Amino acid sequence: MTKGQDMSTYSEQDIEYMHQAIEASRQAVAAGDFPYGATLLATDGRVHVARNNQVTTGDCTGHAEVALVREVAQKLGPDALIGATVYASGEPCAMCSGAMFWAGVSRIVFAMPTSVINAVGGAPYLQPTTAEVLAGASRQIAVEGPLLQDEATQVLREFVTR
Amino acid sequence: MTKGQDMSTYSEQDIEYMHQAIEASRQAVAAGDFPYGATLLATDGRVHVARNNQVTTGDCTGHAEVALVREVAQKLGPDALIGATVYASGEPCAMCSGAMFWAGVSRIVFAMPTSVINAVGGAPYLQPTTAEVLAGASRQIAVEGPLLQDEATQVLREFVTR
Repeated sequence: MTKGQDMSTYSEQDIEYMHQAIEASRQAVAAGDFPYGATLLATDGRVHVARNNQVTTGDCTGHAEVALVREVAQKLGPDALIGATVYASGEPCAMCSGAMFWAGVSRIVFAMPTSVINAVGGAPYLQPTTAEVLAGASRQIAVEGPLLQDEATQVLREFVTR
Repeated sequence: MTKGQDMSTYSEQDIEYMHQAIEASRQAVAAGDFPYGATLLATDGRVHVARNNQVTTGDCTGHAEVALVREVAQKLGPDALIGATVYASGEPCAMCSGAMFWAGVSRIVFAMPTSVINAVGGAPYLQPTTAEVLAGASRQIAVEGPLLQDEATQVLREFVTR
């Protein structure tokens, strides 16, 4: 279900939006939050970038993708989520995968795989990959990655060793 | 990992809090939301009841358990979630299971199993059970149920056929 690291399978647009997600992960760290960011590309071309905010909000559900789903629904309307692509600097956890499923997202592209996050992060972790969480769901979501894994992992490494 | 329907394995307290979760599911329907409720019992005995609010808030992440995690963190402080038991009228989906994991919940008791929700609900669904989502996590959470399955399912059936 994943495309792997072959950059030729991704468009320039994919790479640009993933760069934005990784930049948001840097901004999250600068704000005192955890090093994750996500970009939404709606089917009508609108773009929204969100970042982890769980420390600054005191809400453990404030992962970048859940923040993204809530912010987009509020600012652009819930229809902007339907059929959208989400670029996530870290492979979405079960909570975030579920949130994007319920939101109607059609495609998820991630930078760091779950295995890398769990190995580097030094934090509590859930085991299932995004594809495992979404397997057998009533609607299929394309899951692709890793894309720009090294760039995203560098942000996580700097966060862990800061 | 589940206790099954043998009522003798549950305490009177378990049954009382599950009744409250199911009552919250009825209140959700009355408000125009989906038929799910959840009760939190903190380790210091404090109790908080929440219900699905995704229609009335326009936020697809407003499942009862995610609402519960957010409300408890805000009202009682995030420490009230640590080690807590959550009683859910429906077996938590991947999103909700993940949210409770990140919150530090120690025990989850559900009324309707995922298989029943997916069969009766007539709605989009994710496949993994709560136990499957949490398997292999860095911290183990006890998952028990079904408890008062018929009572909770009656609310869902009435909602679907209303």
